[in-house]
Amino acid sequence: MIPEPLSRLQTLLARLPGIGRRSAERIALALARDAGELRRGLLSALNDLEERVALCSRCGGVTTKEQDPCALCRDPRRESDVLCVVEDPGDILLIERAGSYRGRYFALLGRLSPMSGQTVTDPRIELLLRRIREEGIREVILALNSDVESEATVVWLAEILSQTPVAVSRLALGLPAGSAIAYSDPITLARALEGRRRLRRTP
Amino acid sequence: MIPEPLSRLQTLLARLPGIGRRSAERIALALARDAGELRRGLLSALNDLEERVALCSRCGGVTTKEQDPCALCRDPRRESDVLCVVEDPGDILLIERAGSYRGRYFALLGRLSPMSGQTVTDPRIELLLRRIREEGIREVILALNSDVESEATVVWLAEILSQTPVAVSRLALGLPAGSAIAYSDPITLARALEGRRRLRRTP
Repeated sequence: MIPEPLSRLQTLLARLPGIGRRSAERIALALARDAGELRRGLLSALNDLEERVALCSRCGGVTTKEQDPCALCRDPRRESDVLCVVEDPGDILLIERAGSYRGRYFALLGRLSPMSGQTVTDPRIELLLRRIREEGIREVILALNSDVESEATVVWLAEILSQTPVAVSRLALGLPAGSAIAYSDPITLARALEGRRRLRRTP
Repeated sequence: MIPEPLSRLQTLLARLPGIGRRSAERIALALARDAGELRRGLLSALNDLEERVALCSRCGGVTTKEQDPCALCRDPRRESDVLCVVEDPGDILLIERAGSYRGRYFALLGRLSPMSGQTVTDPRIELLLRRIREEGIREVILALNSDVESEATVVWLAEILSQTPVAVSRLALGLPAGSAIAYSDPITLARALEGRRRLRRTP
């Protein structure tokens, strides 16, 4: 009863992050009902995305085809000996918004996830090792997620990087800002305790 | 720092139902990172939607341009004297899935919403009244949502329809299936009490 282009659109929408089967249907129907402005706007934006946007050949972040390497890779004011390794290009934007990091980036474009068959490709790791070598990187910060698969990726990367002369660090694990102990899960609490910071020296 | 086609896509995505600013950003980034298959699939599905899908000229439901009126309007096995009035084309699909209704449909394509400036257009109401007259409709079921604006639309439509010879009913208001009184809001409970159904005659 649903016309084919609509059910096809729905199937594709359900593959986007955070969109389930039901909300894919709602969105597809809203687009079918739309007078045309939103539908045509999306068509044009997706088309421009296809034609103009690309991942930076150096860091894997989002940039345009005309600007490669990206603005962050070119910026001479950034520290050039610290490299922050993330999973996704979008993570770079979020860390930039946090505002305290001034070094370079590298997106893995993947992580070790045997269940979903996802992995970090060899060429990606080779590129990371080449950058470390050629750019005189002294510290690599592993800014990966904190679920099981990302943790495995951190351990694996740390092992690979142990063969290079760089210092390797990872993000602190602990309570998120503004949260309460009462709402924390046991693993988060255990890690916040492990990673506790001393406030005053004992006398 | 975000390339223009990407931020434009993000703004448009945030106008879709159920997608907030943050999830629009996640989706736009996933589409930028995508190797191309999903992005091109969406482009082609949106294009087909634009070219092939339309709203039925009789009921306002979703159909293809080649099939107008839609399959539900043409189906000779449906009861032709009961008309179910909904707000959105998508509501027709949901009522069909519930499986118990066998009559015809009419989508208002709007409701009275003074705050958002949304309304039911006059031509839509004229079409509804013409269908009631020409198709010998005996009962109109108002299957609208149960929030304040839809309630106002129900009252307004009931007033308009009181000038026609049809019986007008509306969906029952009460506890959703599988829910608990403990989790119900006071208005739902009050309406469930008001609409209580007698199980056994008093002796």
